[in-house]
Amino acid sequence: MKMIIHIFLTLSLVSSISFASVQDFCVADPKGPQSPSGYSCKSPDQVTENDFAFSGLAKAGNTSNIIKAAVTPAFAPAFAGTNGLGVSMARLDLAGGGVIPLHTHPGASEVLVVIQGTICAGFISSANKVYLKTLQRGDSMVFPQGLLHFQLNSGKGPALAFVAFGSSSPGLQILPFALFANDLPSELVEATTFLSDEEVKKLKGVLGGTN
Amino acid sequence: MKMIIHIFLTLSLVSSISFASVQDFCVADPKGPQSPSGYSCKSPDQVTENDFAFSGLAKAGNTSNIIKAAVTPAFAPAFAGTNGLGVSMARLDLAGGGVIPLHTHPGASEVLVVIQGTICAGFISSANKVYLKTLQRGDSMVFPQGLLHFQLNSGKGPALAFVAFGSSSPGLQILPFALFANDLPSELVEATTFLSDEEVKKLKGVLGGTN
Amino acid sequence: MKMIIHIFLTLSLVSSISFASVQDFCVADPKGPQSPSGYSCKSPDQVTENDFAFSGLAKAGNTSNIIKAAVTPAFAPAFAGTNGLGVSMARLDLAGGGVIPLHTHPGASEVLVVIQGTICAGFISSANKVYLKTLQRGDSMVFPQGLLHFQLNSGKGPALAFVAFGSSSPGLQILPFALFANDLPSELVEATTFLSDEEVKKLKGVLGGTN
Amino acid sequence: MKMIIHIFLTLSLVSSISFASVQDFCVADPKGPQSPSGYSCKSPDQVTENDFAFSGLAKAGNTSNIIKAAVTPAFAPAFAGTNGLGVSMARLDLAGGGVIPLHTHPGASEVLVVIQGTICAGFISSANKVYLKTLQRGDSMVFPQGLLHFQLNSGKGPALAFVAFGSSSPGLQILPFALFANDLPSELVEATTFLSDEEVKKLKGVLGGTN
Amino acid sequence: MKMIIHIFLTLSLVSSISFASVQDFCVADPKGPQSPSGYSCKSPDQVTENDFAFSGLAKAGNTSNIIKAAVTPAFAPAFAGTNGLGVSMARLDLAGGGVIPLHTHPGASEVLVVIQGTICAGFISSANKVYLKTLQRGDSMVFPQGLLHFQLNSGKGPALAFVAFGSSSPGLQILPFALFANDLPSELVEATTFLSDEEVKKLKGVLGGTN
Amino acid sequence: MKMIIHIFLTLSLVSSISFASVQDFCVADPKGPQSPSGYSCKSPDQVTENDFAFSGLAKAGNTSNIIKAAVTPAFAPAFAGTNGLGVSMARLDLAGGGVIPLHTHPGASEVLVVIQGTICAGFISSANKVYLKTLQRGDSMVFPQGLLHFQLNSGKGPALAFVAFGSSSPGLQILPFALFANDLPSELVEATTFLSDEEVKKLKGVLGGTN
Repeated sequence: MKMIIHIFLTLSLVSSISFASVQDFCVADPKGPQSPSGYSCKSPDQVTENDFAFSGLAKAGNTSNIIKAAVTPAFAPAFAGTNGLGVSMARLDLAGGGVIPLHTHPGASEVLVVIQGTICAGFISSANKVYLKTLQRGDSMVFPQGLLHFQLNSGKGPALAFVAFGSSSPGLQILPFALFANDLPSELVEATTFLSDEEVKKLKGVLGGTN
Repeated sequence: MKMIIHIFLTLSLVSSISFASVQDFCVADPKGPQSPSGYSCKSPDQVTENDFAFSGLAKAGNTSNIIKAAVTPAFAPAFAGTNGLGVSMARLDLAGGGVIPLHTHPGASEVLVVIQGTICAGFISSANKVYLKTLQRGDSMVFPQGLLHFQLNSGKGPALAFVAFGSSSPGLQILPFALFANDLPSELVEATTFLSDEEVKKLKGVLGGTN
Repeated sequence: MKMIIHIFLTLSLVSSISFASVQDFCVADPKGPQSPSGYSCKSPDQVTENDFAFSGLAKAGNTSNIIKAAVTPAFAPAFAGTNGLGVSMARLDLAGGGVIPLHTHPGASEVLVVIQGTICAGFISSANKVYLKTLQRGDSMVFPQGLLHFQLNSGKGPALAFVAFGSSSPGLQILPFALFANDLPSELVEATTFLSDEEVKKLKGVLGGTN
Repeated sequence: MKMIIHIFLTLSLVSSISFASVQDFCVADPKGPQSPSGYSCKSPDQVTENDFAFSGLAKAGNTSNIIKAAVTPAFAPAFAGTNGLGVSMARLDLAGGGVIPLHTHPGASEVLVVIQGTICAGFISSANKVYLKTLQRGDSMVFPQGLLHFQLNSGKGPALAFVAFGSSSPGLQILPFALFANDLPSELVEATTFLSDEEVKKLKGVLGGTN
Repeated sequence: MKMIIHIFLTLSLVSSISFASVQDFCVADPKGPQSPSGYSCKSPDQVTENDFAFSGLAKAGNTSNIIKAAVTPAFAPAFAGTNGLGVSMARLDLAGGGVIPLHTHPGASEVLVVIQGTICAGFISSANKVYLKTLQRGDSMVFPQGLLHFQLNSGKGPALAFVAFGSSSPGLQILPFALFANDLPSELVEATTFLSDEEVKKLKGVLGGTN
Repeated sequence: MKMIIHIFLTLSLVSSISFASVQDFCVADPKGPQSPSGYSCKSPDQVTENDFAFSGLAKAGNTSNIIKAAVTPAFAPAFAGTNGLGVSMARLDLAGGGVIPLHTHPGASEVLVVIQGTICAGFISSANKVYLKTLQRGDSMVFPQGLLHFQLNSGKGPALAFVAFGSSSPGLQILPFALFANDLPSELVEATTFLSDEEVKKLKGVLGGTN
């Protein structure tokens, strides 16, 4: 009899306290409005364990492309449970000769760990100094937020790496695509990079840019 | 002649501007004072590419222990370049039957990706709800900051995972060690967990606790 | 006459500038979508002084329960005006022999001040070290974010404390309820805590857990 | 032929990666719900270059008022593109004898640069120490967050300055308006400032306050 | 025998993992250099439970002064354990007729709870709107960061309140002292507040200001 | 007589409260250790009004260089008072035909206001979309954190702009210098940008790069 009372009282305590837990997480609801802090939160009673898991990193990305490489992100909202939690991951597949061209993540620093193969990676600081390493399986490297960096398969077979970011929306700006795969007028590209008109037009041709 | 002048002027521009770059990164200097934001920064002219790389995740941790598992962290200051950059990683090795007991990271959320084997992982929310998944190779899962979670080898062979954190010092509080591997008086453990005196004393014996 | 002009001009200045004040506060509108930064904001013209006040801490919580204690939170959205302001409070009532079991706040550090009685409080660090104090009326103690801690009435009469948090949604995960008051399978509880099957099942019985 | 394939593959890479870019910016949608982190984001496909530009600072503010000065803010949502980006600006126009009265910005620190004229500026620290400078064209000064400060035209002709804030919603509380341009009862103003009843009522009369 | 090995292995695990815990807290070392994030951290092996406790709030402040009130802060470094943890408290004592004059906290929002007596409290928004409440024992009120607010004993006997801040260094700028208790030239006070020369000089006389 | 007592008591109150003001600001002490949050703080008693003012923006930068432009930063530690306050400014001088080449600020968003002349400015999003505006005197534009952007004098005479950043250390990475003014091996530049060997070597020659 006493035990029954205990259970009743305890559960009501638990239930009144769980009221405080509303912001343990904020699973992304891509249909709701976004804010500077991320996606709207799914209603807690619609959240399931599947919102916190993601199978999209299990499969190798398609490397049959110009860079012989693929980036597979696990960011919000694809990986809905990461929304607002300040961390995410991505998978890098590099076929032989593959390269992730120079790029930046405007919103987060990155740590990379090599799972397979050999990767030559580097970043350039604001002081224009180059930090370059050749990484074997199990080696890791950190790339500070917003700085240009790259990863290149410098081994013989394919390479695989996982990368971690300190944001659920780190962003990704790939330099050659930013320069040559949009409608930024060639004369502006040239004036702001010192590249020649010939080079800019050739690469716009390759990467699909116009103007 | 004009080109020579250009080079001279440009370099002086570069050099005056690089002055602004002092906080691209803050490589940990473990000998300097710490602050709430992390370790002191190494002098920029002593920083090399080796500060941004870490080989400590390459080798499997020693799983010949009571949990048949090992956590190998790549946090600051061991991985000095991550200091203050808001991201870090760790390696989880789980031998057959291995388990990372219930634990929390007070300072960051976590994303796990399975590299080898099968891992049953879960976390418990403030509302005491359990989110449980069995993860295969390549599957990932997110654990919100500060919530109790665990990883358990539920496959036949060994399992390997890498985990990402949204902090270079996420912290790690392992529940059974917090309860039974220190000098917190048994009567306080019992009063604050509802565990029996017998159970507490038995586990203190196993895990090295006193009092 | 000149004064009348002054007043007119001044008021229009005030009114044009008040436009900038839209984010002085963000009173929680529990009906709107939530974001990682908190609840949606009530329309400013519907905000009144009552949104910034809360009477829920005036009354002692009901301590007729298994822990002989009660936690009364003043978090968002109950105390709507705290939403997004990075601070909140709660009231702890501990009857004779009462205890707030081991728990964590995933989202904030805590400062406690004793108003009445004697409280034995402590926390356990990531290094498994125990920090323990007996606090009298007026004494305060700080509990770092995300670390396991407890409060226990170690005096003769009832005890009362107020606690402050550095978040309007600090969260609250109470260890024995997280372990024994849900459907986390007993075998997983046992494997991840080293507790015996007998102990786990007994406490699941007491606290309402299943599986 | 090979080039055509390349272009196709590259574009699909670009398109799949651009998915990650959803939080480069969050242009304010003033019709959506607000959150503690700012305004809702406009749908990315409705964002244009005009959202990132603002012409409201081009025109001098109207200084025909009691303070012979004007503050023209470029904050969110007027300057929609700044929403959530942690920076904004404003324009200060001071006619001869003009003054921006003592005020605070609750949400950001400020840097001022003088474009025209001579400005005497100062702030008061928590320790009640005064930091005072007379600034000429091109001089800049920083005012720490939340501290009382002022700007006063101490030259002969008109003065112009631009100010930068570390928030897109810094807020602006102007002391004499806060004291004398609302319905805060005179007896409360007097009790909380030590000002005389006569002085309070006179200034309420000038600035439009009641009660 | 097997158990002995287990203990040995476990302890070495615990010890290697505790390495990660270096930033659970950062107890203020007032002798070390300060940073924008707070005081330097005491060496972890010199930290004791006393760093996390504070008895300074136990005693009523001395209210035999011009405001018949006292603010007793428990901020870093006096309450060393709060350094960098984003929360702190203070004690307000108001004798009969006592008042905490209009003031701001540049670095944090505040929640107040009344322990004894009756307090009339209010704040003024950037839009110059007044939010005013009379609070009885147990009532709480929130004051948004950086906005002018006050507390006044509106009951018959003495009043006592505890206040919580979302920072370990919230700062405190008391308006009449900022205006009249330093060397800010009277003509500048007058020009930037609209107060009369007579009033300013009278209050400088009372509060110790010069110039 | 009573007044004298009042003054005495008040001053002691002021002095005990000013103790709380230690983190109003943290003027950079370039000789002390740095932390992830910025430079060490100068001792408060050595801080003067000169630490909060900066005259370095008053003089036009030297535009006799390859880009016919100059960036003059007012960041910490040059402008010591901005350290840790989350805001800073810089001055852009563009002679006829001058350009600030494509660049990023890894640590902050930017708002630009044109003081003189006509500036064509633009940025490229993570989705490779271009946002381009021609700005006249008084026009402002915002550039989101970490995204490539440029400013180009598109008028006839010289142009002048001031820019605001949401950090006291925003950083500055200028693309052509990052690519061609260091020792990053040409083959790596080529592999990670798709530029031709001829182009890379030509620009390394112009900008002083090696390897």
